[in-house]
Amino acid sequence: MRILLVNPNISDSVSDLIRDEARRSASPGTEIEVKTAPFGVAYIETRFEALVGAYAAAQVAAENVQRFDAVVVAAFGDPGLTGLRELLPVPVTGMTEAALASAHLLGHRISIIAISQRIQAWYREVVDSYGFGSRLASIRALDRPISAIGGVQQEHAQALKALAERAVDEDGAEVIILAGAPLAGLARSLQGQLPVPVVDGVSSAVRHAETLVSLKPGRAQRGSFARPPAKPHRGLPDAIARLLDSPR
Amino acid sequence: MRILLVNPNISDSVSDLIRDEARRSASPGTEIEVKTAPFGVAYIETRFEALVGAYAAAQVAAENVQRFDAVVVAAFGDPGLTGLRELLPVPVTGMTEAALASAHLLGHRISIIAISQRIQAWYREVVDSYGFGSRLASIRALDRPISAIGGVQQEHAQALKALAERAVDEDGAEVIILAGAPLAGLARSLQGQLPVPVVDGVSSAVRHAETLVSLKPGRAQRGSFARPPAKPHRGLPDAIARLLDSPR
Amino acid sequence: MRILLVNPNISDSVSDLIRDEARRSASPGTEIEVKTAPFGVAYIETRFEALVGAYAAAQVAAENVQRFDAVVVAAFGDPGLTGLRELLPVPVTGMTEAALASAHLLGHRISIIAISQRIQAWYREVVDSYGFGSRLASIRALDRPISAIGGVQQEHAQALKALAERAVDEDGAEVIILAGAPLAGLARSLQGQLPVPVVDGVSSAVRHAETLVSLKPGRAQRGSFARPPAKPHRGLPDAIARLLDSPR
Amino acid sequence: MRILLVNPNISDSVSDLIRDEARRSASPGTEIEVKTAPFGVAYIETRFEALVGAYAAAQVAAENVQRFDAVVVAAFGDPGLTGLRELLPVPVTGMTEAALASAHLLGHRISIIAISQRIQAWYREVVDSYGFGSRLASIRALDRPISAIGGVQQEHAQALKALAERAVDEDGAEVIILAGAPLAGLARSLQGQLPVPVVDGVSSAVRHAETLVSLKPGRAQRGSFARPPAKPHRGLPDAIARLLDSPR
Amino acid sequence: MRILLVNPNISDSVSDLIRDEARRSASPGTEIEVKTAPFGVAYIETRFEALVGAYAAAQVAAENVQRFDAVVVAAFGDPGLTGLRELLPVPVTGMTEAALASAHLLGHRISIIAISQRIQAWYREVVDSYGFGSRLASIRALDRPISAIGGVQQEHAQALKALAERAVDEDGAEVIILAGAPLAGLARSLQGQLPVPVVDGVSSAVRHAETLVSLKPGRAQRGSFARPPAKPHRGLPDAIARLLDSPR
Amino acid sequence: MRILLVNPNISDSVSDLIRDEARRSASPGTEIEVKTAPFGVAYIETRFEALVGAYAAAQVAAENVQRFDAVVVAAFGDPGLTGLRELLPVPVTGMTEAALASAHLLGHRISIIAISQRIQAWYREVVDSYGFGSRLASIRALDRPISAIGGVQQEHAQALKALAERAVDEDGAEVIILAGAPLAGLARSLQGQLPVPVVDGVSSAVRHAETLVSLKPGRAQRGSFARPPAKPHRGLPDAIARLLDSPR
Repeated sequence: MRILLVNPNISDSVSDLIRDEARRSASPGTEIEVKTAPFGVAYIETRFEALVGAYAAAQVAAENVQRFDAVVVAAFGDPGLTGLRELLPVPVTGMTEAALASAHLLGHRISIIAISQRIQAWYREVVDSYGFGSRLASIRALDRPISAIGGVQQEHAQALKALAERAVDEDGAEVIILAGAPLAGLARSLQGQLPVPVVDGVSSAVRHAETLVSLKPGRAQRGSFARPPAKPHRGLPDAIARLLDSPR
Repeated sequence: MRILLVNPNISDSVSDLIRDEARRSASPGTEIEVKTAPFGVAYIETRFEALVGAYAAAQVAAENVQRFDAVVVAAFGDPGLTGLRELLPVPVTGMTEAALASAHLLGHRISIIAISQRIQAWYREVVDSYGFGSRLASIRALDRPISAIGGVQQEHAQALKALAERAVDEDGAEVIILAGAPLAGLARSLQGQLPVPVVDGVSSAVRHAETLVSLKPGRAQRGSFARPPAKPHRGLPDAIARLLDSPR
Repeated sequence: MRILLVNPNISDSVSDLIRDEARRSASPGTEIEVKTAPFGVAYIETRFEALVGAYAAAQVAAENVQRFDAVVVAAFGDPGLTGLRELLPVPVTGMTEAALASAHLLGHRISIIAISQRIQAWYREVVDSYGFGSRLASIRALDRPISAIGGVQQEHAQALKALAERAVDEDGAEVIILAGAPLAGLARSLQGQLPVPVVDGVSSAVRHAETLVSLKPGRAQRGSFARPPAKPHRGLPDAIARLLDSPR
Repeated sequence: MRILLVNPNISDSVSDLIRDEARRSASPGTEIEVKTAPFGVAYIETRFEALVGAYAAAQVAAENVQRFDAVVVAAFGDPGLTGLRELLPVPVTGMTEAALASAHLLGHRISIIAISQRIQAWYREVVDSYGFGSRLASIRALDRPISAIGGVQQEHAQALKALAERAVDEDGAEVIILAGAPLAGLARSLQGQLPVPVVDGVSSAVRHAETLVSLKPGRAQRGSFARPPAKPHRGLPDAIARLLDSPR
Repeated sequence: MRILLVNPNISDSVSDLIRDEARRSASPGTEIEVKTAPFGVAYIETRFEALVGAYAAAQVAAENVQRFDAVVVAAFGDPGLTGLRELLPVPVTGMTEAALASAHLLGHRISIIAISQRIQAWYREVVDSYGFGSRLASIRALDRPISAIGGVQQEHAQALKALAERAVDEDGAEVIILAGAPLAGLARSLQGQLPVPVVDGVSSAVRHAETLVSLKPGRAQRGSFARPPAKPHRGLPDAIARLLDSPR
Repeated sequence: MRILLVNPNISDSVSDLIRDEARRSASPGTEIEVKTAPFGVAYIETRFEALVGAYAAAQVAAENVQRFDAVVVAAFGDPGLTGLRELLPVPVTGMTEAALASAHLLGHRISIIAISQRIQAWYREVVDSYGFGSRLASIRALDRPISAIGGVQQEHAQALKALAERAVDEDGAEVIILAGAPLAGLARSLQGQLPVPVVDGVSSAVRHAETLVSLKPGRAQRGSFARPPAKPHRGLPDAIARLLDSPR
């Protein structure tokens, strides 16, 4: 089985973290590839940056999907995910969606630990859009500047752990999600150090993608996740145009 | 006052409808300009098409915003709206958001009349994302093929009116929104023919944009609608890059 | 265009503040008149006082509506608004409803700054009744005695501004509403001094009323905002009785 | 124990129905008195009529409360109830609120059977305002003209029963509320004829009022149901003024 | 009238408290009996303990129901309540459900005061399951060890009172529920000492059970609270088997 | 890896279906064992039957858990699941919870196809308890008698498929869950025959259990899913008592 993870941002250092955790968590026999967006920003904290990342992820996914059994949108917040689910002929998972699916199986009230204050509003809207708002105990975030996005988890490991503990004690969190591709792998490093189960987006997205490939639930032929209807278009990247025009 | 309306789709015929209704509804002294997306699809019905339209709208808006006092995203579903609100230095309104604001002042339960079955799921998600889910009486939609997007309102006027009447009688609608830029102006043509107030997205978006320009509520300097934080980026259109990098 | 603002309370000093801000914010050509309730309390903080204000507003509005194109219920909390929307032959807006409509176009999460602790529960119920509960970041209120209702905004300007800043920093507010007719005009005085957009109820209600008059969405002939059905009544003020009995 | 039921409408025939059912359902030793509003409409179907009924009920209750241990607002929809709870020194219940309290103890999903189509929107808003929206399976209503309000339950008994049966079969109702003072006593007449438990507003309101008097939960001295704060007022009926001004 | 209260726990000291408060609050002529679970834990704080208590309560209720007109599940959290409502031929009430019904008639926002930190999550889920989540101002709980479950209210009376006061001042509580059978009777002892109405679960459950017996709303013959359909079973306690198999 | 599936019902024929589908869907190297409840009913349709099944599942799980890496509660509706998550030292998944987790990754609006009318209310409450109510497009169910519970899927395959198609066309379902252990494996048989993705509870529960075992998120030491606090108990089955008393 071959899984493509698309980093919707331009940070190669984060793509490395994603690749490492994806390979550690994949089942035997699963091949992992990570692609970095050719345009965009260093990391997404806002709605506008998510809009850019969504379009970049769509291009990368469309160009490469033929060689893969599943695609993962590898940024927390899942930019472009629901659109790609319509477009691509294989299962697509996202880090937020997958982390929520895992967390949902471990406890009822979920807290998200994030890397910046600014990122919280966007995360909250994404969680709400999945209907998980009532499960959210809190979002807690670092309030200090990030010197290098690929090094956040080393630099701030203790602060992140402290945020998780406060989420349990003060917000009633029953599960913790360590959010954001820059934190990929941190849940593994903290194993046994937090008082409630801890979920990582990359490993969840990879494992759930494997499960969907394996269970073959079938593709939407009708309803709102079927392919977009054929219609005139102009100026789209070739790979996207081909997917839109391919015979149904 | 100068207002830019951005059609996130490639259909010039729809841009014409938008321009006509915008000019009819603007206050004396307001100048209206409409720009059509240089790339994308003929009209948006799905999440993926909205993702494309959002990026196209962002480019067009960024390239032209300097000459305007306000920007309108002129597609129902508001692709890119909340992202543009972060990025642009002027007020931004969208057709869905504005139509809901008007409808909210006319009745409690709101029905949306749409041009295709497929479009309904996306509309519902957008309405929910604004927190207006509990106000939605129903979405009712045409179930016949659209021969030319610019001619939908002429071709199907009676069917659209019948859908509105059923929304009142069967769904308890207290206000009707005629949704989609291709229906721009239809509310005006149907004046007096429907049993409850009828709202049009383009005229609402223009008038509310005027109100925001006039009342000068101020721009977000903090919080999640402030400009995206400065950070590395790559490969973005010049106009967008300039807005991201401009001094704060 | 002529707009009547009804102050459902007996405070002439507040009516003066309402009149001043309404005139400052109205479009050229709009005439503004403000009427003060002949009976009731100095300002509304509770459900019971709102019940009294609603009946007083209904009387004033019914007696004067013939000379106006629109009516504004000029107390935050909108006492009587939805009832008057059924009864009156012209558009009716309220300060809360209109401020929410404006705020909705400026950000997602909204905080309300209020003049007394007691008033908060009632405001929350009104916001919830409009389906805006999920958009409410917080209500924050002064916790000191009010010496003269017409002078609240001068006396407590700094405290009110500080409450707004805390709403942004601690509650995630993306827009601020300065609530209550006694604060009419304060948003204008604070222009540029708050870190997020600020909305005023009176100016919003006036501008949205103008928009409704201008767009002519039509009146409800069916549904729950049509006129109350003809039926026996007794002892009602003449102006109300005439409206109930007028030919349909 | 003495309980006052206030009919916020002018229909003496409905007051008779209320009195009969209240006496049948009261505990031994409870004295029942019913007062009819001196002004208002024959029966309430709309928000405006509720606004009038609320003010009328407040006057009647204020004038008579000294002789009673509890007050019941005896119209479904509970006009004025939450306001009166602030004002009056004794427990107050309303027909809707009390019927929901009873129904809540008998099943999860509740359907309301109502006497007119028009009345449904108002009922729905009241149920929502109590936070019971998620418990509402449906509201079903007669769709035929009412010839005399005091005779609705005789005239339409079979149609009302049929509506209840459809609510069980089609809407998943687990409990039925027969709504509206004009239906007072119908639940009793239909005993054993409906497939799920049936609740009546008048008997529920009386019994719950008795329970509150008996359990002595105490009166609100703080919070939003404490008495309205002392402040200037003008032109209010004497009985209301006295209650507002009485020493605290 | 005879009412059976089932303590789903093994603590005889708590059964004594339940019996005393039930007898104090019952109407003249009502006979009260309390049965203690033959197996289970000392008091329920968790979902697992509730699962055990539910089965124990079912056994006790099934064995004794023939001699009673109503049954009360006498633990806050109502273990087994909705299941017993299907099974038993008489009305069944629970302490949480009944306390919420009473509180609902006294104010809008309700706070629950509980005996342990751990118990809060379970209480919250039960309140949510009744659709009362939007009415919940807060749950506040003791954070100290319980030395003897039957003596909690004496030992911690001042701490419990302080929690209630904070719920009013900081959480906007308009009514307080003193939760848990071990607190049965405390509301009565604190009469007049708290600033808002206070509700007790045992007395509410008894009074509401009396009301249901008296009003005879009828038993569910259809819908989801009708008796479980006849089907094969094995190994069930005799009393339960008899109720499942009895002729319909 | 060894996974125990507990059938909370007494039907060996259903246990066979569960075992077959579990083995087909498990990863290489996963060993599957299924245990049938020693007491209870043939299949669960009601809250009372779920209460019995929960206690039976708890006993079976407690007696066997030492030999397994994860436990699956193998009845749709997940009787006892959240309680067992507190008690057991290994991950626990349930069919409903797991099917929702899978469906959540495939579409937004989910419909459940069920085997009996009666079962729907209980399913709805369980889905709501997980916070998935807003994701539920509909529950549709067979309305014919079940002759043998182990043969439902053969006997009614076409009717079940037709229900799924109606859920897509009329309710907007984007994913279908075939609910109930008696339907285990049906999704696999219908592969390619339904217009949207189809999810099966048993295979989802097994795969998600494997993922949790593999990712090692850690066990709750604090919060509401930690083990029940030590306290007196009496009369519990030995295996349960041992787990409650084991050193922490």
